[in-house]
Amino acid sequence: MGIRVAVAGASGYAGGELLRLIAGHPEFDLVAATAHRQAGQPVSAVHPQLAGLDLVFAGTDPTTLADADLVFLALPHGESAALAAELPESVRVVDLGADHRLRDGAAWQRYYGGTHAGAWTYGLPELPGQRAAIAGARRVANTGCYAAAITLALAPLVAANAVQPADVVVVAASGTSGAGRAAKGHLLGSEVMGDLSPYKVGAHQHVPEIKQATGATGLSLTPVLAPMPRGILATVTAVPTAAGTDPRAVLTQAYADAPFVHVLPEGAWPHTAATLGSNSAHLQATVDVDSGRVIVVSAIDNLGKGAAGQAVQCANLMYDLPEQAGLSVFGVAP
Amino acid sequence: MGIRVAVAGASGYAGGELLRLIAGHPEFDLVAATAHRQAGQPVSAVHPQLAGLDLVFAGTDPTTLADADLVFLALPHGESAALAAELPESVRVVDLGADHRLRDGAAWQRYYGGTHAGAWTYGLPELPGQRAAIAGARRVANTGCYAAAITLALAPLVAANAVQPADVVVVAASGTSGAGRAAKGHLLGSEVMGDLSPYKVGAHQHVPEIKQATGATGLSLTPVLAPMPRGILATVTAVPTAAGTDPRAVLTQAYADAPFVHVLPEGAWPHTAATLGSNSAHLQATVDVDSGRVIVVSAIDNLGKGAAGQAVQCANLMYDLPEQAGLSVFGVAP
Amino acid sequence: MGIRVAVAGASGYAGGELLRLIAGHPEFDLVAATAHRQAGQPVSAVHPQLAGLDLVFAGTDPTTLADADLVFLALPHGESAALAAELPESVRVVDLGADHRLRDGAAWQRYYGGTHAGAWTYGLPELPGQRAAIAGARRVANTGCYAAAITLALAPLVAANAVQPADVVVVAASGTSGAGRAAKGHLLGSEVMGDLSPYKVGAHQHVPEIKQATGATGLSLTPVLAPMPRGILATVTAVPTAAGTDPRAVLTQAYADAPFVHVLPEGAWPHTAATLGSNSAHLQATVDVDSGRVIVVSAIDNLGKGAAGQAVQCANLMYDLPEQAGLSVFGVAP
Amino acid sequence: MGIRVAVAGASGYAGGELLRLIAGHPEFDLVAATAHRQAGQPVSAVHPQLAGLDLVFAGTDPTTLADADLVFLALPHGESAALAAELPESVRVVDLGADHRLRDGAAWQRYYGGTHAGAWTYGLPELPGQRAAIAGARRVANTGCYAAAITLALAPLVAANAVQPADVVVVAASGTSGAGRAAKGHLLGSEVMGDLSPYKVGAHQHVPEIKQATGATGLSLTPVLAPMPRGILATVTAVPTAAGTDPRAVLTQAYADAPFVHVLPEGAWPHTAATLGSNSAHLQATVDVDSGRVIVVSAIDNLGKGAAGQAVQCANLMYDLPEQAGLSVFGVAP
Repeated sequence: MGIRVAVAGASGYAGGELLRLIAGHPEFDLVAATAHRQAGQPVSAVHPQLAGLDLVFAGTDPTTLADADLVFLALPHGESAALAAELPESVRVVDLGADHRLRDGAAWQRYYGGTHAGAWTYGLPELPGQRAAIAGARRVANTGCYAAAITLALAPLVAANAVQPADVVVVAASGTSGAGRAAKGHLLGSEVMGDLSPYKVGAHQHVPEIKQATGATGLSLTPVLAPMPRGILATVTAVPTAAGTDPRAVLTQAYADAPFVHVLPEGAWPHTAATLGSNSAHLQATVDVDSGRVIVVSAIDNLGKGAAGQAVQCANLMYDLPEQAGLSVFGVAP
Repeated sequence: MGIRVAVAGASGYAGGELLRLIAGHPEFDLVAATAHRQAGQPVSAVHPQLAGLDLVFAGTDPTTLADADLVFLALPHGESAALAAELPESVRVVDLGADHRLRDGAAWQRYYGGTHAGAWTYGLPELPGQRAAIAGARRVANTGCYAAAITLALAPLVAANAVQPADVVVVAASGTSGAGRAAKGHLLGSEVMGDLSPYKVGAHQHVPEIKQATGATGLSLTPVLAPMPRGILATVTAVPTAAGTDPRAVLTQAYADAPFVHVLPEGAWPHTAATLGSNSAHLQATVDVDSGRVIVVSAIDNLGKGAAGQAVQCANLMYDLPEQAGLSVFGVAP
Repeated sequence: MGIRVAVAGASGYAGGELLRLIAGHPEFDLVAATAHRQAGQPVSAVHPQLAGLDLVFAGTDPTTLADADLVFLALPHGESAALAAELPESVRVVDLGADHRLRDGAAWQRYYGGTHAGAWTYGLPELPGQRAAIAGARRVANTGCYAAAITLALAPLVAANAVQPADVVVVAASGTSGAGRAAKGHLLGSEVMGDLSPYKVGAHQHVPEIKQATGATGLSLTPVLAPMPRGILATVTAVPTAAGTDPRAVLTQAYADAPFVHVLPEGAWPHTAATLGSNSAHLQATVDVDSGRVIVVSAIDNLGKGAAGQAVQCANLMYDLPEQAGLSVFGVAP
Repeated sequence: MGIRVAVAGASGYAGGELLRLIAGHPEFDLVAATAHRQAGQPVSAVHPQLAGLDLVFAGTDPTTLADADLVFLALPHGESAALAAELPESVRVVDLGADHRLRDGAAWQRYYGGTHAGAWTYGLPELPGQRAAIAGARRVANTGCYAAAITLALAPLVAANAVQPADVVVVAASGTSGAGRAAKGHLLGSEVMGDLSPYKVGAHQHVPEIKQATGATGLSLTPVLAPMPRGILATVTAVPTAAGTDPRAVLTQAYADAPFVHVLPEGAWPHTAATLGSNSAHLQATVDVDSGRVIVVSAIDNLGKGAAGQAVQCANLMYDLPEQAGLSVFGVAP
């Protein structure tokens, strides 16, 4: 018998992707999917792509979840801490929300407000030493989607002293599923198709997480909503240090053993469609001839390496399973 | 050691999807991917979604392919027959092209021209008796993508005498990958985004295959190119017979044991995005209150149940493997 | 000084397109745009494409509207009749809603419910004799978007006895703006991009209008939501009469003097993108070689010839202005 | 009688948009549209959105063009200089290509190669003094599409000493029509839908033009291809000077009298769809709370203010016509 797995907040997009991955995972048994408003409905009525999955949404309550070995929390930011506090220590938990990511309570206050729940082990296995930390943890805070894309691109360069941490400029575009499933007017298909629109310019709540994870000390992030359901493309630029280290070489070495992170061959640049449905990240780096800045581009599926895939990868490590169990390296394209 | 598998014509879209499925298949070992112009290039240079797949395209020659146990032919219509003729009988072959689908040589002549290669076992496992036929075959002609969507919707109704075969009207829209990967002006993103365009109106080459597979004797097919990479939505209407059989009940019974065909709950209608990346077909039927016509809608992924997924399903049957091996019932959505 | 024009319900998509057209019209002065919830907001806050238009939404009340010479009603179905009843006879009115389209009160009851307000002059100038009727009317009921596309394709063929009215099959796909601007979950960009989904299958409320306008007596309409903001592509099939009349010739003759209806050269088929932003309809017809059915395809912009453009065209006729005033024959493509 | 206008290279996307604008221009008479391969074809066969335009492509030769009063050159970069040299001085010319934009011959050599044709009056009317310069010119070099979006965002800030010119970072995403109409595999709809892909990273040929037009001395530009037919969204970041000038105030003042440039109300950010089909540019600016960098975002239609619209605006100035003649301030949305 497999590991008994539950998903809280399973009616959203990250939740639906978790259900898909768990249903195909060789060691996981999906025992419960919970939701607030959809409790009592068949899962496939909410996620038509899961037609054939014989499961009904339960209400999101701790008792239901405590019956599982492993719980994924896919709740809105600010809602997971209270629920997590009610789960017994014996249950392993991966939180896809922001509640347990930040070590800095002041930053939490400034960007999210409310009580700071404290930080859990950070769920980005490709950071140095983090695989072991995750393997030993019972509580893991999954990376945010922008943070995953940007940290994979930037952290090794800061760590290797290849770029200056104080002047990092990021423009990152996300598919619409990153904005969630709530029915909001500006997310209507009529509005987003054919459109690129920046949002939260000048003050994005993911900046503290990215600074914490990358070591950057000055970072401007401009997020853009792009006309596609999935995918993040992050363009990260930074000023090289005097060391003159080749950024691509740093990345190649950092991810030599990472099954999901691919530094592309020279001249090939990441694009989001190549990562759709997978847990992979694609990276490339160069030095701009005009400005001398280092430019790194990373592409991920925001629901894959940016959310559900990453969470399953962490859970695999927590259970000492093969890191790739139930996950695909390859994208669904075109 | 697994079954040694080769793909001919692996640089196209169906070929790329075959590579993805084979790479994730528990019993298949991908030993060769062949292409004409791309021979010598890394597979991932042509299919960036397969970054991490360590394989180089070979040229498309019979010797390379004959070394495999199982060969998928994903070549343009008219090119597979000659190649297939050079493969030894010991090699099992699934042809995704049209060359071996039609039993009627005259229809082949009229729509495709050239020598008719003769018909192989038709690769639609859900037709009555066809699972056994495929299991016993060494040569299988995979269904066309439109034919798969339309036949699943229509064949049981004709067989059950629920609709008249002489007056079937089909409008079916396909994502652009169905039009192939050749760089043609009318397939540019600038042209297809925001656009619906009918093509081959009044005389589509897939009509004879659909008539053969469904038993329809009069059928009008209007294909439409839709602004999405994948998916087919077929709207099939027909005149009910005097019997007054409930079309949904007929379909439900016909596919009771089919793992990939889902007749949706009443009131839910198929949509293409729910099938993306999967081998599933979604169906629904009703009787139109105004006209009295039976309306059946089916949705598939044209590269899944419409091409590569279907082909793998057939191969699973040919090797007495579980029908679902290496295939997903669930779609990647949103 | 020009004709003083007001738009009620100007916060929706048809309303926004009306504002754009009126702002560019040589004889119209936009004096009021009304809305319920957005009253008091700048128009450009709701319609960012109208940045530079110096106007604030007024509340939707009859007094405001009665001050204009000409009022366009772009309200939800069922809301315009009550408002129209309060406008003085001296004010000319074009209603873009369904309230005054149907002559058959029973059909209104069956599909819309509530009191039937009675029929106004039907706003499709290309129907025989309708230009004169509109020119002499003070109240015009604009066609529905599906009705516009389908009637232009079908009405001349029924009138010419080229097709049988009793067995018409239509599949028509619409861009998402046709579903309105209310924030509904199934209209989110994440849901509609990459997706085709049928809706209201088997019983669509536009069928009575289409039958009334075309003379069809049996008609099945399957509407499909397509992944694009604008456009309708209607595929209309019907059984030819014994007369054997060439359908394309009938259409060509019917629209010889219609500036906005283009029967395309033989071999060219309509596609929606070519009509974007214009008031044009593109048509083509053929006889299907397999089934013998007549197939007509029409393409329009659902907010152009399907709504706001059509309404302005009617208003031009009502004021004896050039039919093309303020309207574009040419689409914005790609 | 109007001004006689010809378009060379009228089969491409910028050419098609020019034809649309000229056909609707109150003072321009379209007398010739030339193309190489399409010579002899009806214009509407190549541009279906222009159905109803009764014109046939002529071959691209100087004699045909010299017969016009005004010629727009919409040819590939490197092809217009030779043709322009053969046109008599009496013919006014607006070149949409790059050939006559750069004053620095060395930069031309480095990025384009071949002989440098020398610089013409730069066609961005909103630059200080440029309206008058264009009005007095017989030869105008239209801005590039990226340059238009970026220069409008940046030039006033550099001129006002509000930002440091030496460290400008730009990420700009363009719709696919910016990549032209040549049938290339990576521009297929199947490839671009659902995808964001950077290109020419680290060395883009438009950088010298942007530096020349803005006064920036160090500038990194990362262009991204976005899944939409039209639109450019440019995110421009720069380090503020000690002066601490409010960037939004600078932009507001700079464009107080510019009919096509809209600095949006505070809190509203530009998005591309709002500019579709128009000649408008939308701008917004802020100072990033984390990094202190100035962030300016601009949105245009790459075929409007980025190409054909801009060209018509320049031509209006050259003929002392109202700057807005034949151009729309308002976009076609949704």
